[in-house]
Amino acid sequence: MKRVGFMLKVRQDKLDEYKQHHQQVWPEMLQALRETGWHNYTLFVRDDGLLFGYFETPGTLEAAQAHMAEREINTRWQEFMAPYFESPNNARPDEMFVELTEIFHLD
Amino acid sequence: MKRVGFMLKVRQDKLDEYKQHHQQVWPEMLQALRETGWHNYTLFVRDDGLLFGYFETPGTLEAAQAHMAEREINTRWQEFMAPYFESPNNARPDEMFVELTEIFHLD
Repeated sequence: MKRVGFMLKVRQDKLDEYKQHHQQVWPEMLQALRETGWHNYTLFVRDDGLLFGYFETPGTLEAAQAHMAEREINTRWQEFMAPYFESPNNARPDEMFVELTEIFHLD
Repeated sequence: MKRVGFMLKVRQDKLDEYKQHHQQVWPEMLQALRETGWHNYTLFVRDDGLLFGYFETPGTLEAAQAHMAEREINTRWQEFMAPYFESPNNARPDEMFVELTEIFHLD
């Protein structure tokens, strides 16, 4: 399993709403994530909206994203979430991931 | 197990050195972390030095830090690492953790 860390920036004025949506992610979206290798997946936020994601996957971030990109439910979720992110060009959130570099691990 | 996410800021001009030290963390430091509840612990960095830490622990971040603070090896490691961090008042790195809020989890 590869450990993936990534960052995104949620609009601070919409952070409360963003959190609420993540307490009730659509079951079909959760199922698609499970089926495409998003394991032990957690999202964290800082008060200003900086978002950090962590998950474990058999392949790479790119592969996990590519598998999700094939799912219609993901297209709908990403379009639903797009207004919550700071984006220079209205990109979908899943096109703005900044992948981080793992520098240390202890089991 | 609670999932903990935290951030710190490494000095960009010292990031390469910081990475190198983390490829050879002292064995006594690793052992202390294991004994004080730092499980599945990973550090990630962004190119500008923003550091993100993820681990799983039976208690809280505060408890895990308090247990480490009792270890002499931790005092030495934190003093060794202090120059690598952006700090307004030369605080030890383990006194500057910004804890993040978990907003979503999928096993």
